[in-house]
Amino acid sequence: MEPKVGVIMGSKSDWDTMKHTCNILDELEVPYEKKVVSAHRTPDFMFEYAEQAQDRGIQIIIAGAGGAAHLPGMVAAKTLLPVIGVPVQSKALNGMDSLLSIVQMPGGVPVATVSIGTAGATNAGLLAAQFLAVHHTELRNRLQERRERTRNAALESSGELE
Amino acid sequence: MEPKVGVIMGSKSDWDTMKHTCNILDELEVPYEKKVVSAHRTPDFMFEYAEQAQDRGIQIIIAGAGGAAHLPGMVAAKTLLPVIGVPVQSKALNGMDSLLSIVQMPGGVPVATVSIGTAGATNAGLLAAQFLAVHHTELRNRLQERRERTRNAALESSGELE
Amino acid sequence: MEPKVGVIMGSKSDWDTMKHTCNILDELEVPYEKKVVSAHRTPDFMFEYAEQAQDRGIQIIIAGAGGAAHLPGMVAAKTLLPVIGVPVQSKALNGMDSLLSIVQMPGGVPVATVSIGTAGATNAGLLAAQFLAVHHTELRNRLQERRERTRNAALESSGELE
Amino acid sequence: MEPKVGVIMGSKSDWDTMKHTCNILDELEVPYEKKVVSAHRTPDFMFEYAEQAQDRGIQIIIAGAGGAAHLPGMVAAKTLLPVIGVPVQSKALNGMDSLLSIVQMPGGVPVATVSIGTAGATNAGLLAAQFLAVHHTELRNRLQERRERTRNAALESSGELE
Amino acid sequence: MEPKVGVIMGSKSDWDTMKHTCNILDELEVPYEKKVVSAHRTPDFMFEYAEQAQDRGIQIIIAGAGGAAHLPGMVAAKTLLPVIGVPVQSKALNGMDSLLSIVQMPGGVPVATVSIGTAGATNAGLLAAQFLAVHHTELRNRLQERRERTRNAALESSGELE
Amino acid sequence: MEPKVGVIMGSKSDWDTMKHTCNILDELEVPYEKKVVSAHRTPDFMFEYAEQAQDRGIQIIIAGAGGAAHLPGMVAAKTLLPVIGVPVQSKALNGMDSLLSIVQMPGGVPVATVSIGTAGATNAGLLAAQFLAVHHTELRNRLQERRERTRNAALESSGELE
Amino acid sequence: MEPKVGVIMGSKSDWDTMKHTCNILDELEVPYEKKVVSAHRTPDFMFEYAEQAQDRGIQIIIAGAGGAAHLPGMVAAKTLLPVIGVPVQSKALNGMDSLLSIVQMPGGVPVATVSIGTAGATNAGLLAAQFLAVHHTELRNRLQERRERTRNAALESSGELE
Amino acid sequence: MEPKVGVIMGSKSDWDTMKHTCNILDELEVPYEKKVVSAHRTPDFMFEYAEQAQDRGIQIIIAGAGGAAHLPGMVAAKTLLPVIGVPVQSKALNGMDSLLSIVQMPGGVPVATVSIGTAGATNAGLLAAQFLAVHHTELRNRLQERRERTRNAALESSGELE
Repeated sequence: MEPKVGVIMGSKSDWDTMKHTCNILDELEVPYEKKVVSAHRTPDFMFEYAEQAQDRGIQIIIAGAGGAAHLPGMVAAKTLLPVIGVPVQSKALNGMDSLLSIVQMPGGVPVATVSIGTAGATNAGLLAAQFLAVHHTELRNRLQERRERTRNAALESSGELE
Repeated sequence: MEPKVGVIMGSKSDWDTMKHTCNILDELEVPYEKKVVSAHRTPDFMFEYAEQAQDRGIQIIIAGAGGAAHLPGMVAAKTLLPVIGVPVQSKALNGMDSLLSIVQMPGGVPVATVSIGTAGATNAGLLAAQFLAVHHTELRNRLQERRERTRNAALESSGELE
Repeated sequence: MEPKVGVIMGSKSDWDTMKHTCNILDELEVPYEKKVVSAHRTPDFMFEYAEQAQDRGIQIIIAGAGGAAHLPGMVAAKTLLPVIGVPVQSKALNGMDSLLSIVQMPGGVPVATVSIGTAGATNAGLLAAQFLAVHHTELRNRLQERRERTRNAALESSGELE
Repeated sequence: MEPKVGVIMGSKSDWDTMKHTCNILDELEVPYEKKVVSAHRTPDFMFEYAEQAQDRGIQIIIAGAGGAAHLPGMVAAKTLLPVIGVPVQSKALNGMDSLLSIVQMPGGVPVATVSIGTAGATNAGLLAAQFLAVHHTELRNRLQERRERTRNAALESSGELE
Repeated sequence: MEPKVGVIMGSKSDWDTMKHTCNILDELEVPYEKKVVSAHRTPDFMFEYAEQAQDRGIQIIIAGAGGAAHLPGMVAAKTLLPVIGVPVQSKALNGMDSLLSIVQMPGGVPVATVSIGTAGATNAGLLAAQFLAVHHTELRNRLQERRERTRNAALESSGELE
Repeated sequence: MEPKVGVIMGSKSDWDTMKHTCNILDELEVPYEKKVVSAHRTPDFMFEYAEQAQDRGIQIIIAGAGGAAHLPGMVAAKTLLPVIGVPVQSKALNGMDSLLSIVQMPGGVPVATVSIGTAGATNAGLLAAQFLAVHHTELRNRLQERRERTRNAALESSGELE
Repeated sequence: MEPKVGVIMGSKSDWDTMKHTCNILDELEVPYEKKVVSAHRTPDFMFEYAEQAQDRGIQIIIAGAGGAAHLPGMVAAKTLLPVIGVPVQSKALNGMDSLLSIVQMPGGVPVATVSIGTAGATNAGLLAAQFLAVHHTELRNRLQERRERTRNAALESSGELE
Repeated sequence: MEPKVGVIMGSKSDWDTMKHTCNILDELEVPYEKKVVSAHRTPDFMFEYAEQAQDRGIQIIIAGAGGAAHLPGMVAAKTLLPVIGVPVQSKALNGMDSLLSIVQMPGGVPVATVSIGTAGATNAGLLAAQFLAVHHTELRNRLQERRERTRNAALESSGELE
């Protein structure tokens, strides 16, 4: 199936985080593609990717990066597709640099930012699915079922304390 | 016209920030509603709002709040509609508390977080429009024209330095 | 015995922290119940829990959560019982996000916040006991004895340096 | 009437913050006393105050201080009454120093910390009232009415946007 | 004279900061050009500017930006000319976001970062001049004279205390 | 009288802070000298000052500086006299940069750091006096009297609330 | 020999840090005593210790504590002896809470703060020695020799790179 | 060959970071020297080094240091050669102290600051090479080839995901 979500990351080392995005998209049967697109090492490819994504049928881009994380914001500057940014946990500053570099975009070019690290990567996949589900009842049902499963798991876990 | 975007805020005092969201939606001709929905003062109304939004035709919720900002995350826990969170600049900690309270959601319940304050409020409106534009060519054209206007304004502003 | 304190936590993984609360309540013979109540995964159960706690004889609620920690504040919005919040140490930001999400409540809905992590969990149990002890002489005596024990242990530990 | 709450502050300059605590206690008809008790300038008086508070009928102490704010924690070390700490907004660090000095107490001596500044001062008064209300139905009714008033005010304020 | 330094900034509103760079270059008689080049509003022009700068005789680029400040790093990704980044003081976070977005570049693409705000803008001009002065004795002399003037001014200012 | 304390500051603009040090020394009749000594603009004079201070009879050096505040630590590296560092409140980061630049000295070269801004400047004067008072009974008495005055002022200020 | 320096710490667990203070004092042959004195667990003993230190011949007090670290400031409030504060590295916040709780003292009661953790503990010993050395030539010579040794070690270590 | 770059560091323990600078300079065939130069343990040698560097043919100085990192700024105060500062990751504060101590220089004395830790050390070497390459075509070609290699490696790494 044609990918609807483009999952990109600044470096192969971000895969440990971003695979959580892909796991969710797999689970929800959302077709996606995944690529290393580096703002700083492959800037032209980044622009090309951002420019062509819509015509290739991509509807949402999820971009993960760490440190001075410019990938989500620069992709957002080159497309009108919604861009979700995942702040990868960085070594020295624990992802606070990643978070601020991604979320503090100036008025005019939004990036939908999620939490730092693997929880954020999971949520990026869910957020993409929630957007797509507005026009896709079946996907919506899968999301609904997932919510119910996590609710039930939470309710049951009280019994497991200790 | 039926509102497609629900713009909610924790307090009337957040309006100075959130009116920037409404200005963008007005400019882009996206129908919306606006309400004060307080997580802490009107928790039941918040749940009711979140539960009924989809059936009322709302497709995206934008929630602005400051300090221990629980509104975006709690609404996101009660609906499968995408929720965009706007961290309102707080008095003592300049919105760092608002930002962390909104963006650091656990895996399972995403909030699409934008930048602190008025720039973020503007971007929340644009992000909502970009999501809607995936299935709405006319809105997409308006967004495209807006981008071109801001690009041209930036290019021309070099001449105005000094 | 009827529980007087409700110890709740956002996730089973918070138990490593919150068991320190339960240890103190056990030690001081304060009857309590413990449950997983997730603001984001079981929002309706959270509201139900908060609404019914008082009628069930609960006098104080202790709520532990990490990251964008909404549990203590949302429970506080739904009951007039005093709520003590324990910021669980989070992975990326070491609990600074948990702390700010819990403590920075707007005027109108207080959460009694304690320190980050296990020390805070211990103190949440003690704080609950101190509140109950205002009307419970025996408990007050137990607290007094505990203080004396820790004082003596501190005084004696000088001899163990080196 | 005999004061049930002791409102103390490290300096007369903290009064601009701490008067919000007293306003709430006045509004809820909770008898209280207010004093300047400085951890650093009047340490002996601080200890005397903390030691005698219980015998004088005080049931809860609310202590506000800024910067290296030692008052709440030191009072808590000298009494078994519950102590609520209010971090006063400091000049250079906006109250982050006050907050950490108050909330990060070691296991054994809890301080119930509220938010930085005037919102926290208001909440300190409410928190004290909520604790007292566990054994005081009339006070509980006043708190309930206050909640309803703030809820209604929030609900009505939607109409005032713009 | 042909400009040797390119002074660019993300927005006209950065001019209040970046004019301090231009003042220094004027004072030291270093030929420069100044332009608004926005990473987010004019991404293609940014790439074009960065690609052509060297062939146009530019030897150093100074880029000022605030918030999620991507301009310095993205220009650095598109040229081998040295790039100096000036973190403009942002509204909510006082330039901490600008600083981290500029300085925390991944290994491979350096940005020479200076201090936040006007002091940094001044230093960006001086740093550029110091680099050029390695091969330009006259400029070096001007820098030397400037240092002596500031040294003397400092020495004399003791007399003006009080 | 021969100065016993050297009060130095990185810039004339630090005088608004450092005059509080001098006020205390005047009040306590501790002889001192005051000078602008800039680590970055007059490094040789700084070294000369530090090297000669002891032979000139100076017993303690108080150094105030802001931003990347190197003056206290560098003076400390050039003398065995005790050095007290005053972090001057900086523009963008409110003195957090000044504080960390002064206090985080590596093992081997201590700087006695006081609080940010005018309170710290006052305390630097008091700290110097307390050190001198170990061998100077009269000064000790003056310090004792000052403490009593501030204690009495604090005790009396309760009456002035409201 | 009579101790001239009192080394105190809030808990036995601070010994891993504070032994570095004692090592330096041993090395420099400065007589000292060491004790656990807890602000929160033994407040009366803390006051007694602070009140009697001077009469017992102590000339300087070094106090180490972590988290909401009140020991140095409270001891300083109860004596006119100079007090050096060592911020012990805390678990969640890495000592930032310890540092702010110790250094941000209000005007009137200074604490001479050193760096976080073991480097600070070493420096506390050196700082005490430097103060004592003002009136003690032999100690001054030992400090001088130590400086020369560390200087030579630094100079020689270049040869060991790689 | 005569060294063109001086790589200095505050302590032998900084070598684990600073060897990444030397690796890059080796790879790019830029002649350099490396030394331990400690601002605090060898201040005179530091001044001597800074004063003589230019006459010895050094064109750029790279200085790495951690904590209260004064080396880069003090060297910059003593030479007109461009100085690149590398914030070494510190133990307690993860290099945030190093970063602020290096980057927040006052107007007049710039330090070209790079990212915290090993990525910054790599970038310091590259930045020095980029400055030298302005007048050195062969070096420029080597930098160009390096960029192409890293670009190709990034492009190819997409295939290695999973």
